[in-house]
Amino acid sequence: MKRIAMLATNGFEESELTSPKEALEKQGWRVDIVGLKPGSIKSWKDGNWGDSFNVTLTVKEGLSENYDALVLPGGVMNPDNLRTDETAIEFIRNFFKQGKPVAAICHGPWSLINAEVVEGRTLTSFPSIRKDLENAGANWVDKEVVVDQALVTSRKPDDLPAFNSKLIEEIKEGKHEHQHA
Amino acid sequence: MKRIAMLATNGFEESELTSPKEALEKQGWRVDIVGLKPGSIKSWKDGNWGDSFNVTLTVKEGLSENYDALVLPGGVMNPDNLRTDETAIEFIRNFFKQGKPVAAICHGPWSLINAEVVEGRTLTSFPSIRKDLENAGANWVDKEVVVDQALVTSRKPDDLPAFNSKLIEEIKEGKHEHQHA
Repeated sequence: MKRIAMLATNGFEESELTSPKEALEKQGWRVDIVGLKPGSIKSWKDGNWGDSFNVTLTVKEGLSENYDALVLPGGVMNPDNLRTDETAIEFIRNFFKQGKPVAAICHGPWSLINAEVVEGRTLTSFPSIRKDLENAGANWVDKEVVVDQALVTSRKPDDLPAFNSKLIEEIKEGKHEHQHA
Repeated sequence: MKRIAMLATNGFEESELTSPKEALEKQGWRVDIVGLKPGSIKSWKDGNWGDSFNVTLTVKEGLSENYDALVLPGGVMNPDNLRTDETAIEFIRNFFKQGKPVAAICHGPWSLINAEVVEGRTLTSFPSIRKDLENAGANWVDKEVVVDQALVTSRKPDDLPAFNSKLIEEIKEGKHEHQHA
Protein backbone atom coordinates (compact mmCIF):
# COMPACT_ATOMS: atom_id res chain seq x y z
CA MET A 1 0.00 0.00 0.00
CA LYS A 2 1.28 3.46 -0.92
CA ARG A 3 1.63 6.06 1.82
CA ILE A 4 1.39 9.76 1.02
CA ALA A 5 2.24 12.80 3.20
CA MET A 6 0.28 16.05 2.90
CA LEU A 7 2.24 18.85 4.56
CA ALA A 8 0.08 21.77 5.72
CA THR A 9 -0.52 24.30 8.47
CA ASN A 10 -3.17 26.92 9.34
CA GLY A 11 -4.58 28.72 6.31
CA PHE A 12 -4.37 25.87 3.77
CA GLU A 13 -7.02 26.04 1.04
CA GLU A 14 -9.51 23.39 2.19
CA SER A 15 -10.38 21.82 -1.18
CA GLU A 16 -6.70 21.55 -2.08
CA LEU A 17 -6.24 19.17 0.85
CA THR A 18 -9.57 17.31 0.90
CA SER A 19 -9.87 16.68 -2.85
CA PRO A 20 -6.43 15.07 -3.43
CA LYS A 21 -6.78 13.21 -0.09
CA GLU A 22 -10.06 11.65 -1.20
CA ALA A 23 -8.70 10.78 -4.66
CA LEU A 24 -5.63 9.10 -3.14
CA GLU A 25 -7.66 7.20 -0.55
CA LYS A 26 -9.93 5.91 -3.33
CA GLN A 27 -6.83 4.17 -4.69
CA GLY A 28 -6.65 2.31 -1.38
CA TRP A 29 -3.66 4.37 -0.27
CA ARG A 30 -2.98 5.89 3.15
CA VAL A 31 -2.74 9.68 3.47
CA ASP A 32 -1.19 11.36 6.54
CA ILE A 33 -1.63 15.05 7.35
CA VAL A 34 1.76 16.29 8.52
CA GLY A 35 1.71 19.56 10.50
CA LEU A 36 4.15 21.80 12.33
CA LYS A 37 2.65 21.08 15.78
CA PRO A 38 0.46 18.30 17.27
CA GLY A 39 -3.32 18.90 17.34
CA SER A 40 -5.34 20.38 14.53
CA ILE A 41 -4.93 22.89 11.71
CA LYS A 42 -7.52 25.34 10.44
CA SER A 43 -8.44 25.49 6.76
CA TRP A 44 -9.21 28.55 4.60
CA LYS A 45 -12.50 28.32 2.68
CA ASP A 46 -14.48 30.85 0.60
CA GLY A 47 -12.35 33.76 1.84
CA ASN A 48 -12.54 32.95 5.54
CA TRP A 49 -11.32 30.50 8.18
CA GLY A 50 -12.90 27.08 7.62
CA ASP A 51 -12.93 23.73 9.48
CA SER A 52 -10.27 22.23 11.72
CA PHE A 53 -8.46 19.08 10.61
CA ASN A 54 -6.52 16.72 12.86
CA VAL A 55 -2.84 16.40 12.18
CA THR A 56 -1.69 12.74 11.87
CA LEU A 57 1.81 13.58 13.05
CA THR A 58 4.24 16.50 13.19
CA VAL A 59 6.97 17.26 10.70
CA LYS A 60 9.51 16.47 13.45
CA GLU A 61 8.06 12.95 13.79
CA GLY A 62 7.43 12.45 10.07
CA LEU A 63 10.16 10.65 8.13
CA SER A 64 10.15 11.21 4.38
CA GLU A 65 11.61 7.67 4.08
CA ASN A 66 8.23 6.28 5.22
CA TYR A 67 6.31 7.94 2.36
CA ASP A 68 5.97 7.34 -1.37
CA ALA A 69 5.04 10.92 -2.24
CA LEU A 70 4.43 14.42 -0.88
CA VAL A 71 1.48 16.77 -1.59
CA LEU A 72 1.59 20.52 -0.80
CA PRO A 73 -1.83 22.25 -0.77
CA GLY A 74 -2.04 26.02 -1.26
CA GLY A 75 -3.71 28.87 0.59
CA VAL A 76 -1.71 32.08 1.07
CA MET A 77 -1.00 31.85 4.80
CA ASN A 78 -0.15 28.14 4.84
CA PRO A 79 3.13 28.27 2.86
CA ASP A 80 3.90 31.70 4.36
CA ASN A 81 4.18 29.80 7.68
CA LEU A 82 5.76 26.59 6.37
CA ARG A 83 8.62 28.32 4.59
CA THR A 84 9.98 29.85 7.79
CA ASP A 85 10.18 26.39 9.45
CA GLU A 86 13.53 24.75 8.73
CA THR A 87 12.27 21.24 9.65
CA ALA A 88 9.38 21.55 7.19
CA ILE A 89 11.70 22.76 4.42
CA GLU A 90 14.14 19.89 5.12
CA PHE A 91 11.20 17.42 5.02
CA ILE A 92 10.24 18.73 1.55
CA ARG A 93 13.82 18.69 0.26
CA ASN A 94 14.22 15.03 1.33
CA PHE A 95 11.48 13.88 -1.08
CA PHE A 96 13.41 15.47 -3.94
CA LYS A 97 16.68 13.92 -2.74
CA GLN A 98 15.00 10.50 -2.80
CA GLY A 99 13.54 11.05 -6.27
CA LYS A 100 9.97 10.69 -4.98
CA PRO A 101 6.90 12.38 -6.55
CA VAL A 102 6.01 15.81 -5.16
CA ALA A 103 2.78 17.62 -6.07
CA ALA A 104 2.07 21.29 -5.23
CA ILE A 105 -0.93 23.45 -6.10
CA CYS A 106 -1.77 27.19 -5.97
CA HIS A 107 0.56 28.84 -3.37
CA GLY A 108 1.95 25.37 -2.47
CA PRO A 109 4.97 25.67 -4.84
CA TRP A 110 6.10 28.76 -2.88
CA SER A 111 7.72 26.52 -0.22
CA LEU A 112 9.77 24.79 -2.94
CA ILE A 113 11.76 28.02 -3.33
CA ASN A 114 13.03 27.68 0.24
CA ALA A 115 13.77 23.98 -0.31
CA GLU A 116 15.95 25.16 -3.24
CA VAL A 117 14.60 22.57 -5.65
CA VAL A 118 13.01 24.63 -8.45
CA GLU A 119 16.06 25.71 -10.48
CA GLY A 120 15.67 24.47 -14.06
CA ARG A 121 12.28 22.85 -13.36
CA THR A 122 9.16 23.52 -15.43
CA LEU A 123 6.12 24.24 -13.25
CA THR A 124 3.04 26.36 -12.63
CA SER A 125 1.43 28.00 -9.56
CA PHE A 126 -1.06 30.66 -8.49
CA PRO A 127 0.01 33.65 -10.65
CA SER A 128 0.91 35.92 -7.69
CA ILE A 129 4.06 33.89 -6.91
CA ARG A 130 5.13 33.46 -10.55
CA LYS A 131 7.87 36.09 -10.32
CA ASP A 132 9.33 34.50 -7.15
CA LEU A 133 9.49 31.09 -8.83
CA GLU A 134 11.09 32.59 -11.96
CA ASN A 135 13.64 34.49 -9.85
CA ALA A 136 14.47 31.15 -8.19
CA GLY A 137 15.27 29.70 -11.63
CA ALA A 138 12.03 27.92 -12.55
CA ASN A 139 10.46 27.88 -16.01
CA TRP A 140 6.87 29.02 -15.20
CA VAL A 141 4.07 28.02 -17.58
CA ASP A 142 0.32 28.75 -17.51
CA LYS A 143 -1.34 25.30 -17.69
CA GLU A 144 -3.91 23.49 -15.52
CA VAL A 145 -1.35 20.83 -14.67
CA VAL A 146 2.37 20.53 -15.38
CA VAL A 147 4.36 17.31 -14.92
CA ASP A 148 8.16 17.62 -14.96
CA GLN A 149 9.93 14.42 -13.91
CA ALA A 150 7.73 13.52 -10.90
CA LEU A 151 7.06 17.17 -10.00
CA VAL A 152 3.32 17.85 -10.46
CA THR A 153 2.00 21.43 -10.19
CA SER A 154 -1.31 23.24 -10.73
CA ARG A 155 -2.61 26.83 -10.46
CA LYS A 156 -5.86 26.82 -8.46
CA PRO A 157 -8.79 24.75 -7.08
CA ASP A 158 -10.43 24.55 -10.56
CA ASP A 159 -7.41 22.52 -11.70
CA LEU A 160 -7.92 19.82 -9.02
CA PRO A 161 -9.33 17.06 -11.28
CA ALA A 162 -6.31 17.29 -13.62
CA PHE A 163 -3.93 17.67 -10.66
CA ASN A 164 -5.27 14.57 -8.84
CA SER A 165 -5.16 12.45 -11.96
CA LYS A 166 -1.51 13.29 -12.78
CA LEU A 167 -0.53 12.93 -9.12
CA ILE A 168 -1.92 9.37 -9.05
CA GLU A 169 -0.11 8.53 -12.31
CA GLU A 170 3.22 9.75 -10.91
CA ILE A 171 2.79 7.82 -7.65
CA LYS A 172 2.07 4.66 -9.63
CA GLU A 173 5.27 5.23 -11.62
CA GLY A 174 7.23 5.54 -8.36
CA LYS A 175 10.68 7.09 -7.92
CA HIS A 176 12.12 9.12 -10.74
CA GLU A 177 15.84 9.42 -11.33
CA HIS A 178 15.53 12.98 -12.66
CA GLN A 179 13.72 14.24 -9.56
CA HIS A 180 16.52 15.71 -7.45
CA ALA A 181 17.49 18.30 -4.82
CA MET B 1 1.72 70.52 2.73
CA LYS B 2 3.10 67.05 1.96
CA ARG B 3 0.78 64.47 0.44
CA ILE B 4 1.38 60.74 1.00
CA ALA B 5 -0.22 57.72 -0.73
CA MET B 6 -0.81 54.46 1.15
CA LEU B 7 -1.45 51.66 -1.34
CA ALA B 8 -3.43 48.73 0.09
CA THR B 9 -6.18 46.23 -0.56
CA ASN B 10 -8.11 43.58 1.43
CA GLY B 11 -6.01 41.79 4.03
CA PHE B 12 -3.63 44.64 4.93
CA GLU B 13 -2.33 44.45 8.51
CA GLU B 14 -4.45 47.10 10.25
CA SER B 15 -1.79 48.67 12.51
CA GLU B 16 0.62 48.95 9.59
CA LEU B 17 -1.80 51.33 7.91
CA THR B 18 -3.30 53.18 10.89
CA SER B 19 -0.04 53.81 12.80
CA PRO B 20 1.98 55.43 9.95
CA LYS B 21 -1.19 57.29 8.81
CA GLU B 22 -1.62 58.83 12.26
CA ALA B 23 2.08 59.70 12.54
CA LEU B 24 2.06 61.40 9.12
CA GLU B 25 -1.15 63.30 9.83
CA LYS B 26 0.36 64.58 13.10
CA GLN B 27 2.94 66.32 10.90
CA GLY B 28 0.05 68.18 9.28
CA TRP B 29 0.35 66.13 6.10
CA ARG B 30 -2.44 64.63 4.00
CA VAL B 31 -2.63 60.83 3.63
CA ASP B 32 -4.72 59.15 0.90
CA ILE B 33 -5.63 55.45 0.93
CA VAL B 34 -5.22 54.23 -2.63
CA GLY B 35 -7.02 50.96 -3.46
CA LEU B 36 -7.60 48.72 -6.46
CA LYS B 37 -11.36 49.45 -6.61
CA PRO B 38 -13.66 52.22 -5.29
CA GLY B 39 -15.36 51.62 -1.93
CA SER B 40 -13.72 50.13 1.12
CA ILE B 41 -11.01 47.62 1.98
CA LYS B 42 -11.00 45.16 4.88
CA SER B 43 -8.09 45.00 7.29
CA TRP B 44 -6.48 41.95 8.92
CA LYS B 45 -6.19 42.18 12.72
CA ASP B 46 -5.19 39.66 15.43
CA GLY B 47 -5.37 36.75 12.98
CA ASN B 48 -8.79 37.55 11.53
CA TRP B 49 -10.63 40.00 9.26
CA GLY B 50 -10.82 43.43 10.92
CA ASP B 51 -12.49 46.76 10.16
CA SER B 52 -13.34 48.27 6.77
CA PHE B 53 -11.55 51.43 5.64
CA ASN B 54 -12.72 53.79 2.92
CA VAL B 55 -10.51 54.13 -0.10
CA THR B 56 -9.74 57.78 -0.99
CA LEU B 57 -9.26 56.95 -4.67
CA THR B 58 -8.32 54.04 -6.90
CA VAL B 59 -4.89 53.27 -8.27
CA LYS B 60 -6.25 54.06 -11.76
CA GLU B 61 -7.19 57.59 -10.60
CA GLY B 62 -4.11 58.10 -8.41
CA LEU B 63 -1.18 59.89 -10.01
CA SER B 64 2.17 59.31 -8.37
CA GLU B 65 3.11 62.86 -9.53
CA ASN B 66 0.60 64.23 -6.98
CA TYR B 67 2.32 62.58 -4.02
CA ASP B 68 5.53 63.17 -2.09
CA ALA B 69 5.90 59.58 -0.88
CA LEU B 70 4.41 56.08 -0.92
CA VAL B 71 3.76 53.73 2.03
CA LEU B 72 3.09 49.99 1.59
CA PRO B 73 1.57 48.26 4.65
CA GLY B 74 1.92 44.48 5.04
CA GLY B 75 -0.48 41.63 5.74
CA VAL B 76 -0.04 38.41 3.72
CA MET B 77 -3.09 38.64 1.44
CA ASN B 78 -2.75 42.37 0.68
CA PRO B 79 0.46 42.24 -1.42
CA ASP B 80 -0.54 38.81 -2.77
CA ASN B 81 -3.41 40.70 -4.46
CA LEU B 82 -1.53 43.91 -5.32
CA ARG B 83 1.31 42.18 -7.11
CA THR B 84 -0.99 40.66 -9.73
CA ASP B 85 -2.39 44.12 -10.62
CA GLU B 86 -0.27 45.75 -13.34
CA THR B 87 -1.65 49.27 -12.61
CA ALA B 88 -0.69 48.96 -8.93
CA ILE B 89 2.81 47.75 -9.81
CA GLU B 90 3.23 50.63 -12.29
CA PHE B 91 2.07 53.09 -9.60
CA ILE B 92 4.75 51.77 -7.22
CA ARG B 93 7.48 51.84 -9.89
CA ASN B 94 6.70 55.48 -10.70
CA PHE B 95 7.67 56.63 -7.18
CA PHE B 96 11.08 55.04 -7.67
CA LYS B 97 11.44 56.59 -11.13
CA GLN B 98 10.76 60.02 -9.59
CA GLY B 99 13.26 59.45 -6.75
CA LYS B 100 10.53 59.81 -4.11
CA PRO B 101 10.60 58.12 -0.69
CA VAL B 102 8.95 54.69 -0.48
CA ALA B 103 8.36 52.87 2.83
CA ALA B 104 7.29 49.21 3.09
CA ILE B 105 6.77 47.04 6.17
CA CYS B 106 6.27 43.31 6.85
CA HIS B 107 4.95 41.66 3.63
CA GLY B 108 4.75 45.12 1.98
CA PRO B 109 8.19 44.84 0.29
CA TRP B 110 6.92 41.74 -1.58
CA SER B 111 5.25 43.98 -4.20
CA LEU B 112 8.59 45.71 -4.84
CA ILE B 113 9.80 42.48 -6.47
CA ASN B 114 7.15 42.83 -9.18
CA ALA B 115 7.98 46.52 -9.60
CA GLU B 116 11.56 45.35 -10.27
CA VAL B 117 13.13 47.93 -8.00
CA VAL B 118 14.97 45.86 -5.34
CA GLU B 119 18.11 44.79 -7.19
CA GLY B 120 21.16 46.02 -5.31
CA ARG B 121 19.05 47.64 -2.56
CA THR B 122 19.55 46.97 1.16
CA LEU B 123 16.28 46.23 2.94
CA THR B 124 14.37 44.12 5.45
CA SER B 125 10.90 42.49 5.55
CA PHE B 126 8.84 39.84 7.30
CA PRO B 127 11.25 36.84 7.30
CA SER B 128 8.98 34.58 5.18
CA ILE B 129 9.65 36.60 2.02
CA ARG B 130 13.40 37.03 2.65
CA LYS B 131 14.38 34.39 0.07
CA ASP B 132 12.16 36.00 -2.62
CA LEU B 133 13.76 39.40 -2.02
CA GLU B 134 17.27 37.91 -2.10
CA ASN B 135 16.49 36.01 -5.32
CA ALA B 136 15.36 39.36 -6.78
CA GLY B 137 18.80 40.81 -6.00
CA ALA B 138 18.20 42.58 -2.68
CA ASN B 139 20.63 42.62 0.24
CA TRP B 140 18.35 41.47 3.09
CA VAL B 141 19.26 42.46 6.67
CA ASP B 142 17.57 41.73 10.00
CA LYS B 143 17.00 45.18 11.59
CA GLU B 144 13.93 46.99 12.96
CA VAL B 145 14.30 49.66 10.29
CA VAL B 146 16.56 49.96 7.26
CA VAL B 147 17.01 53.16 5.26
CA ASP B 148 18.70 52.88 1.87
CA GLN B 149 18.53 56.08 -0.18
CA ALA B 150 14.87 56.98 0.48
CA LEU B 151 13.76 53.32 0.69
CA VAL B 152 12.55 52.64 4.26
CA THR B 153 11.72 49.05 5.32
CA SER B 154 10.76 47.24 8.53
CA ARG B 155 9.95 43.66 9.57
CA LYS B 156 6.73 43.68 11.63
CA PRO B 157 4.19 45.73 13.66
CA ASP B 158 6.62 45.92 16.66
CA ASP B 159 8.96 47.96 14.45
CA LEU B 160 6.34 50.66 13.73
CA PRO B 161 7.75 53.42 15.99
CA ALA B 162 11.18 53.19 14.30
CA PHE B 163 9.55 52.81 10.86
CA ASN B 164 7.34 55.91 11.28
CA SER B 165 10.20 58.03 12.54
CA LYS B 166 12.53 57.19 9.62
CA LEU B 167 9.67 57.57 7.14
CA ILE B 168 9.00 61.12 8.36
CA GLU B 169 12.72 61.94 8.16
CA GLU B 170 12.91 60.75 4.55
CA ILE B 171 9.79 62.68 3.52
CA LYS B 172 11.27 65.84 5.05
CA GLU B 173 14.45 65.27 3.03
CA GLY B 174 12.36 64.96 -0.17
CA LYS B 175 13.48 63.43 -3.46
CA HIS B 176 16.65 61.41 -3.52
CA GLU B 177 18.82 61.12 -6.63
CA HIS B 178 19.87 57.56 -5.76
CA GLN B 179 16.29 56.28 -5.49
CA HIS B 180 15.62 54.80 -8.92
CA ALA B 181 13.68 52.20 -10.94
